[in-house]
Amino acid sequence: MRFDVLTIFPKMIGFYCAESIIKRAIERGLIEVEVTNIRDFSQDRHLTVDDYPFGGGPGMVMKIEPLYNALSHVQSRQKHTVLLSPEGAVFNQAKAYELSQKKDGVVLICGRYEGVDERINGLVDEEISIGDFILTGGELPVLVIIDAVARLLPGVLGDVRSSQEESFSSGLLDYPHFTRPAEFMGERVPEVLMSGNHKEITKWRRRQSLMRTMIKRPDLIDEARLTEEDYKILEQLKEEV
Amino acid sequence: MRFDVLTIFPKMIGFYCAESIIKRAIERGLIEVEVTNIRDFSQDRHLTVDDYPFGGGPGMVMKIEPLYNALSHVQSRQKHTVLLSPEGAVFNQAKAYELSQKKDGVVLICGRYEGVDERINGLVDEEISIGDFILTGGELPVLVIIDAVARLLPGVLGDVRSSQEESFSSGLLDYPHFTRPAEFMGERVPEVLMSGNHKEITKWRRRQSLMRTMIKRPDLIDEARLTEEDYKILEQLKEEV
Repeated sequence: MRFDVLTIFPKMIGFYCAESIIKRAIERGLIEVEVTNIRDFSQDRHLTVDDYPFGGGPGMVMKIEPLYNALSHVQSRQKHTVLLSPEGAVFNQAKAYELSQKKDGVVLICGRYEGVDERINGLVDEEISIGDFILTGGELPVLVIIDAVARLLPGVLGDVRSSQEESFSSGLLDYPHFTRPAEFMGERVPEVLMSGNHKEITKWRRRQSLMRTMIKRPDLIDEARLTEEDYKILEQLKEEV
Repeated sequence: MRFDVLTIFPKMIGFYCAESIIKRAIERGLIEVEVTNIRDFSQDRHLTVDDYPFGGGPGMVMKIEPLYNALSHVQSRQKHTVLLSPEGAVFNQAKAYELSQKKDGVVLICGRYEGVDERINGLVDEEISIGDFILTGGELPVLVIIDAVARLLPGVLGDVRSSQEESFSSGLLDYPHFTRPAEFMGERVPEVLMSGNHKEITKWRRRQSLMRTMIKRPDLIDEARLTEEDYKILEQLKEEV
């Protein structure tokens, strides 16, 4: 899958893609990340990419023309175009799956978070935000999206699907993990995990998942895919808490 | 303000901090970012930082001992300790402000997202997630937090407070921005923004902010700090839509 990234800070994207899972996925030909510097598509002699806002106010606004030119350049190859913006729909695992299905790849535009000329809206398919906070630009959000999407592509994680992922996919928080040593500073690993009884282990983990979600993120429960058994456990847990 | 980052991918943090606003803030002595490689605190001869989960299942679990040792090392300087984890409270602008008030700095631990030994919970003050999606590790979330927090510190953005930030602080989405040219491919900048009438411009922008929030992120309206005038505008907008 191909990711085309439009940015005024191309190094930020390049550096991250030279590390870890993204690096290996690129080396193995599973993904391509092509970075386009928006500044290269500015047509004035100072290579301007931003200008003062009409109507006054603080901050600069990213100009529409260099963006339009850069987009025309990359959209000849890719179609689905996303602007990273604090006004966008909030990114989540479902959106990561959706983007991972875009066989022709995606174009990701790193906006300056002070603002992009509103007329960009006619040129993109959707706006995505990674959360309700303000960042300097869309570069970190783009990397977040590439990381989240890439790991869903066949072969990128190898054969090991992480339990975390399966867990979030069901809409619940993950269960607690433990590894050696069995005891650390007086805290012991729960006995059931060392019992070898896989049925009990599965049951314990599901119950922990439900309990953590209920306590830490009750907002997720309504959207989660739960079984009848899960609802029974939740009722029990509510009585206990 | 000092950020201590614990990671098994120190380069990922270093690269980003060598660019843009973070770089300038470091050069001007406004922030420090100190990266500690958790692997340096592993005490076995293979420098192991993860191990198989008790109870079986896919993925590896980050071991508690190297984390404990690395934390002991940095906590002698910093106190407030945050684990990045998909099970944490969801990061937002209010949390960014809160962290920016930690004068003694913060310690940020990049978990492997497959899982960290649960006993880490006794060693941290809070768990933060940047959203409901799965990433390879906590490195990008840590960079998101550093970026969001750093720009709130005095001097980092210079004198210019971005309108975006003010906007999000009121709990609403930002109003649309426009810059030159006044017309682009048949789309003209709204006349009011070129009128020079600042009272009308302010009114138009607030109305746009309210309208965008109502349409794109109605979930934010309940939490926003609104005036009586805002509620009147919202009533009008609801009738129009």
